Amino acid sequence: MRQSKILIPTQKQDPAGAEALSHKLLLRAGFIRQISAGNYAYLPLAYRVLARIKTIIREELDRTDATEMLLPTMIPAEFWKKSGRYAAYGPELFRLKNRHDTDFILGPTHEETVTELIKATVSSYKKLPLNIYQIQSKYRDEDRPRYGLLRSREFMMLDSYSFAASDEDLDQTYRAMRQAFTKIFDRIGLDYQSIIGDSGSMGGSDSMEFSAPAAVGEDTIVYSDNSEYAANLEMATNLVMNKKSHAEPQSLQVVATANCKNVADVAALLEVSTDQIIKSLLYDVDGQLVLVLLRGSQTVNENKLQNFFNADRLQLADAIETKGQVLQDGTLALPSKMVVVADEYVHGMVNGVIGAPAMAVIVNSQGAKLPNVDLTTDPIGKHYTGFNPSRDFPDLQYGDFRMVNEGDISPDGSGVLHFTKGIEVGHIFKLGTRYSTSLDATILDENGRQQPVIMGCYGIGVSRLLSAVTEQQADENGLIWPRSIAPFDVHVLPINIKDEKQRTLAEQITTNLENDGLEVLLDDRKERAGVKFADADLIGIPIRITLGKKVAEDIVEVKIRKTGETIETRVDDLKNTIDILAKNI
Amino acid sequence: MRQSKILIPTQKQDPAGAEALSHKLLLRAGFIRQISAGNYAYLPLAYRVLARIKTIIREELDRTDATEMLLPTMIPAEFWKKSGRYAAYGPELFRLKNRHDTDFILGPTHEETVTELIKATVSSYKKLPLNIYQIQSKYRDEDRPRYGLLRSREFMMLDSYSFAASDEDLDQTYRAMRQAFTKIFDRIGLDYQSIIGDSGSMGGSDSMEFSAPAAVGEDTIVYSDNSEYAANLEMATNLVMNKKSHAEPQSLQVVATANCKNVADVAALLEVSTDQIIKSLLYDVDGQLVLVLLRGSQTVNENKLQNFFNADRLQLADAIETKGQVLQDGTLALPSKMVVVADEYVHGMVNGVIGAPAMAVIVNSQGAKLPNVDLTTDPIGKHYTGFNPSRDFPDLQYGDFRMVNEGDISPDGSGVLHFTKGIEVGHIFKLGTRYSTSLDATILDENGRQQPVIMGCYGIGVSRLLSAVTEQQADENGLIWPRSIAPFDVHVLPINIKDEKQRTLAEQITTNLENDGLEVLLDDRKERAGVKFADADLIGIPIRITLGKKVAEDIVEVKIRKTGETIETRVDDLKNTIDILAKNI
Repeated sequence: MRQSKILIPTQKQDPAGAEALSHKLLLRAGFIRQISAGNYAYLPLAYRVLARIKTIIREELDRTDATEMLLPTMIPAEFWKKSGRYAAYGPELFRLKNRHDTDFILGPTHEETVTELIKATVSSYKKLPLNIYQIQSKYRDEDRPRYGLLRSREFMMLDSYSFAASDEDLDQTYRAMRQAFTKIFDRIGLDYQSIIGDSGSMGGSDSMEFSAPAAVGEDTIVYSDNSEYAANLEMATNLVMNKKSHAEPQSLQVVATANCKNVADVAALLEVSTDQIIKSLLYDVDGQLVLVLLRGSQTVNENKLQNFFNADRLQLADAIETKGQVLQDGTLALPSKMVVVADEYVHGMVNGVIGAPAMAVIVNSQGAKLPNVDLTTDPIGKHYTGFNPSRDFPDLQYGDFRMVNEGDISPDGSGVLHFTKGIEVGHIFKLGTRYSTSLDATILDENGRQQPVIMGCYGIGVSRLLSAVTEQQADENGLIWPRSIAPFDVHVLPINIKDEKQRTLAEQITTNLENDGLEVLLDDRKERAGVKFADADLIGIPIRITLGKKVAEDIVEVKIRKTGETIETRVDDLKNTIDILAKNI
Repeated sequence: MRQSKILIPTQKQDPAGAEALSHKLLLRAGFIRQISAGNYAYLPLAYRVLARIKTIIREELDRTDATEMLLPTMIPAEFWKKSGRYAAYGPELFRLKNRHDTDFILGPTHEETVTELIKATVSSYKKLPLNIYQIQSKYRDEDRPRYGLLRSREFMMLDSYSFAASDEDLDQTYRAMRQAFTKIFDRIGLDYQSIIGDSGSMGGSDSMEFSAPAAVGEDTIVYSDNSEYAANLEMATNLVMNKKSHAEPQSLQVVATANCKNVADVAALLEVSTDQIIKSLLYDVDGQLVLVLLRGSQTVNENKLQNFFNADRLQLADAIETKGQVLQDGTLALPSKMVVVADEYVHGMVNGVIGAPAMAVIVNSQGAKLPNVDLTTDPIGKHYTGFNPSRDFPDLQYGDFRMVNEGDISPDGSGVLHFTKGIEVGHIFKLGTRYSTSLDATILDENGRQQPVIMGCYGIGVSRLLSAVTEQQADENGLIWPRSIAPFDVHVLPINIKDEKQRTLAEQITTNLENDGLEVLLDDRKERAGVKFADADLIGIPIRITLGKKVAEDIVEVKIRKTGETIETRVDDLKNTIDILAKNI
């Protein structure tokens, strides 16, 4: 194909406002253009990369018996009201009405739509399992779209949905899809890790993320330096090693801490480590007030908390002192039905320190009566020492509510945890009956009983892959495409298109390579050689054939974009050279 | 591919609410499902047909040097405000806001977006001509979506946009695209006509429609029975043969016609043909009042009227009598600045009859003073006879503002006009500078002068093609797909899948044909033979191979869906039989 016929608006300068390397280079190399904040045009070169990625996805999914379809982008709001996500998804959902005032959303994902479809068309286990997918533009009204295609408002996704009558069938499809995703990312030439994912907002029991390590990544990947363990920070856990304390449990004592503003202040005042201070945080979890207790050195992991309660929404609530009400007699009247949970590390605590308002909440929630805890006294500005949760509150509910830290022991006991940044490029979920139950999608099972259909879902961020690959593989001169997804396989560059011999030979080489099944870009522009070379490096086609003065001797230069290596070859050896290179890049 | 793995929810009964044959059959055969009014899911079989159509489109467009890209679906409202279409497009535009209250629309078409793109990336004639296309879901908020994919709210379109520095380059691309569209529709196997199209709402000078004759079509195609002439009724014209009248022009006379409600009443009262009565209609054309005069036997063609004035909007206004105001002295006070135009057939009129209010408007607009026309008299309930426009108003503006009638002479003078119904499946336009001017997209020409870029646009209704093909080719048993776009090439149907010999042979035949490059659907379901046959006819794959009891003798039956013809063939002759059939269907 002739370069003069393709819109490739390369730019010499870094575009203003682009921070990430991939964003800068995809703009500079003329692959994408912003139409509005977070909405990009995929220009012909980007479109060709997308097309090759889509082909790879289709080939691998089709092997698993998944079949392609296409759902409407506009989804009736009613579907999402049934699933509860219409409210839960919040301001990231694009909402609109049709002329008859019916509410719609622009689909960020299609669990509800496809569940309604299966509900309307499949009534028996005999028609299952099924796995259907689509590759389509999706919509998310990001507050701050950034990094080009990494976080945009309109983006291209593969989304596949499986339906089964048994957990075994779901497991089998999940494994097949995991395998297919692995092949897809391998074929694309991406460096990636499969890690334990957060299934939080999607509902469901089991999930795995495919994450491409890159400095610009917004996810933190936690991995063991001595085992296969890898997880999203949101889900990462560690091996809890509660050191046995040999200290003698002391009795609860109230101390005044009026001037202490934070955990560190209390620790300093009482001359204990921050680890001995209980950090208490009050959350509103789907309307329920929840007090979370952690050791002072830990950070709460809201994602784990949300998953623990299987909640749609979670947010920090006002402090207990504000939520409660200090009565005239100095007692604290608390809102009823507060729930208390504590991180596993709190369990073995001996002689901890805890704020008096939090203590009041725990006493209330556990229905406990404790010596030395006088709820008729104004608790504000006071702490208790001698807090021994196993002794004082044996029924306290424990869980993993903390962020792991670098250096923690891997949960499999092998190695310590390290952090790295990653870009989420794929995600597979066992949804179970999260959507089929709320949307009432049932089938008759083998025994003639109605049961909710069992679902899985599987997604790949197709447009985002362009950024992920670029973050990993570009250099200071521009993009470097892996052969499998490059916009063209070979770039033919006659230095002077007005030179009859160069032009004719370039056209002949192009035709020959195209006849061999390669995609070839011929730079037929009347530009200076410097401009052509710079553009070629920027665009990043894996192999370049340069035609210069030596065409008189039937010699051309072959350059490998990735390594910069060049080979001079006779024209009649060219096919052989290209064949060998194409296999080995 | 195994039929048990694909979602094909066939139905025995005609679905409620589906009127058009194609709508009924595409639903019944499990190709599509409605998700909400006018929004359909393309299930796997429909998706496969779409994929084949898209491949044909891509192959033919790529030959013309057009290149594929993809623009965002969400278009900033600002672009459409600049072009004037944000208001003009009316309630069919889906409008939405992002979280920062910026207005967007869902693109029904992308002239503005692509013009902004070219404005931002191309500044010189040296980079032109360019032609870029996309295949994408489009959105139109139809008041009454109907006929399934024929008139839906979300539909798939090919839209291509060309940019040139000269009219010659536009002409060349336009011709190439016309040729490409012809090849595309030929390859799809559609019966279609290329007709003179309406370029109205798109702006622009020249356009051609591709229309598929079908009873359910919403367009009327006008064609000559003796020449190549064919046009959309909205644009169709005829040869004007103003018969020379030998009557003596009479003077204007006022007559009372108070009880006449319409043209026929006046004609009866005055004992003249309706053709001698002037029909006058008052329109609001972009806020300008326009009085249109036609012969009583003609019907106004609002499209021609709108194009004549190059207007965005046009609607019938209230009657002159309401618009004007009868003053106390009996005169009619008219709104100023009314414009009068007359259809060509009015030109040669001798001794016509015209309503007195219309006469008052004409006299006003032409600044004429006429004997016997007394504007100080209340004109309501009166007509004038002896209306001779060439004599009375020599400066009257004429044009073609009428609908042609069946039996009119073709504008090329050869044959008479006939009408038929058609489905618009493609449309090509010379846009000229309609959008580049309003969006200020200029380039430097060869002389270093800024000039607006010259555009063309080219569209195919991709999803609508499924309906158009079905309307033309289905029968009472179901769909009949042309080979080039069939969801599969061959349907292999073992009557009893539990029969070991049938099952094994069916699988072997499937594998062999797939290895020969054919797409094969294997009906591996444990259904009764009757169900399988009915489903096969409904789905409409061109060739069916049925395996029954004669597999014991190595004999299978090959059936051609279109003709119902069957051939018994030995398994070792099967490949040859299929090859011959595949070439000839």
